[in-house]
Amino acid sequence: MVRNKLNKLVVIGVGLIGGSAALALKRARAVKRIVGVGRSRANLATALRAGLIDEVAYDAGDAVRDADLVLLATPVAQMAPLMAQLAPRLAAHTVITDAGSTKQDVIACARKFLGARFSCFVPAHPIAGSETSGAAAARADLYRGRTVILTPQPETDLRAMRLVRALWRTCGARLVNLSAQEHDAVFAAVSHLPHLLAFAMMDEIASRPNGGALLRYGGSGFRDFTRIAGSSPEMWRDICIANRDALLAELDAFESQLERLHALIEQGDAQALEEIFTRACAARRRWLEGK
Amino acid sequence: MVRNKLNKLVVIGVGLIGGSAALALKRARAVKRIVGVGRSRANLATALRAGLIDEVAYDAGDAVRDADLVLLATPVAQMAPLMAQLAPRLAAHTVITDAGSTKQDVIACARKFLGARFSCFVPAHPIAGSETSGAAAARADLYRGRTVILTPQPETDLRAMRLVRALWRTCGARLVNLSAQEHDAVFAAVSHLPHLLAFAMMDEIASRPNGGALLRYGGSGFRDFTRIAGSSPEMWRDICIANRDALLAELDAFESQLERLHALIEQGDAQALEEIFTRACAARRRWLEGK
Repeated sequence: MVRNKLNKLVVIGVGLIGGSAALALKRARAVKRIVGVGRSRANLATALRAGLIDEVAYDAGDAVRDADLVLLATPVAQMAPLMAQLAPRLAAHTVITDAGSTKQDVIACARKFLGARFSCFVPAHPIAGSETSGAAAARADLYRGRTVILTPQPETDLRAMRLVRALWRTCGARLVNLSAQEHDAVFAAVSHLPHLLAFAMMDEIASRPNGGALLRYGGSGFRDFTRIAGSSPEMWRDICIANRDALLAELDAFESQLERLHALIEQGDAQALEEIFTRACAARRRWLEGK
Repeated sequence: MVRNKLNKLVVIGVGLIGGSAALALKRARAVKRIVGVGRSRANLATALRAGLIDEVAYDAGDAVRDADLVLLATPVAQMAPLMAQLAPRLAAHTVITDAGSTKQDVIACARKFLGARFSCFVPAHPIAGSETSGAAAARADLYRGRTVILTPQPETDLRAMRLVRALWRTCGARLVNLSAQEHDAVFAAVSHLPHLLAFAMMDEIASRPNGGALLRYGGSGFRDFTRIAGSSPEMWRDICIANRDALLAELDAFESQLERLHALIEQGDAQALEEIFTRACAARRRWLEGK
């Protein structure tokens, strides 16, 4: 938990992720003043009205000047220019962290652009979200019981780590450390590929001349399978580019699995299909039980 | 609605689908006596205890002898032997219908095995379900507001059609007529392929040496994407075999879409990726709004 109230937190990107963290910290009275920075004036006005932030700033460099903590909660492709802009403006005591869905690329940016201030950067990824986005979707309980992955580097300052851990604990999350490479490989498999497949399916069907007629018959299975295709296109574009190698490895593995299934269906191999479905069904049940 | 209470309904396969129909009809007092037939004694005992059925029969041929209506609610591969067994035992007034997820194959079976009684067979598919199965999962409201597809044939008797329409209306469903071919093509796209992909993903990840470690990080997106991988392996094995051609056509289209995405990620074509994701996201929003 954050023991000594922070004077100033700057949240850059006050969407679902940054806005929910801001709201949880405000409710916990862990911060005196939260400043929101972002590209959309309308979204920042929403964040102000909803009480996620105390004030709005349009220049990220000015905003961070006397901050105790800066949370970068933008799509990952924005982190490089942001870090380049912020680096010369960060005070000696300022800790900077992120909520990016990929870690190796964000760490490489930070190493490149934060220079001497790299040790005060704590790379993190809160495993929470939904298919909604923007400040209007923020919820104080988004992180309750969820996991936040930290991928600290050898240079990472212990005081900075402690502050970021306290921040997420105050939001109700539990913390896990992973290497950045492991993080990116794991999330390529259980998050990035499923998102890609959901977008692929929704677009493939909707783009057909009879797409509307087909979708009319989509039921609850289709609804849940494609739920994540409602996620932010920009955020997921950035993730696909940033985590390209791991994602392509997952896509290759999945395409091989589809080829196997294609052959089994073509051959009418009912027994082999049932074995695969039975393993999948049992694995999912075990997974849910272990949750 | 069922206007004149039926004397006897026989439900063959008292699982989620057949059991929920039985329960809804009992609650509506539309049937005097419901007889359940099935392979699993334990499941039939559950159905009896839960009040889905009034009595249990172990021989389908004996059970249907004086029935007004017979509902086949088994996985589709069981329909051929069942119909062969029932055909000589059906009374002149008995109407027979099914709840199979594929229609061309079930109709071909009925045409082959029901012989002169084919005109009393009404092919139907209630678009409802969940990843749960068995009598214990039955719910009286499963069909409320849901669609039931009817795929009548030129020979189908009008009295039989009226009775089956009344049955499903009493369960709260709305009715749509489609050709059997159109039905199978539509559901290959919006139901059979998503199920196949969910099974494929769950098995592909869980079968790896580090599957457990990967799954530990699966969040709500993964949970919803794979929900339908919890569905009955036997039922989905049968559907894949029965609707092979339409499903393979859908799988081909999806594999082509994945190849396109693979190339775009490999080339780092952020703009093209964002366009696809944006179309998918917008299509899903429109679809939800139209629901």
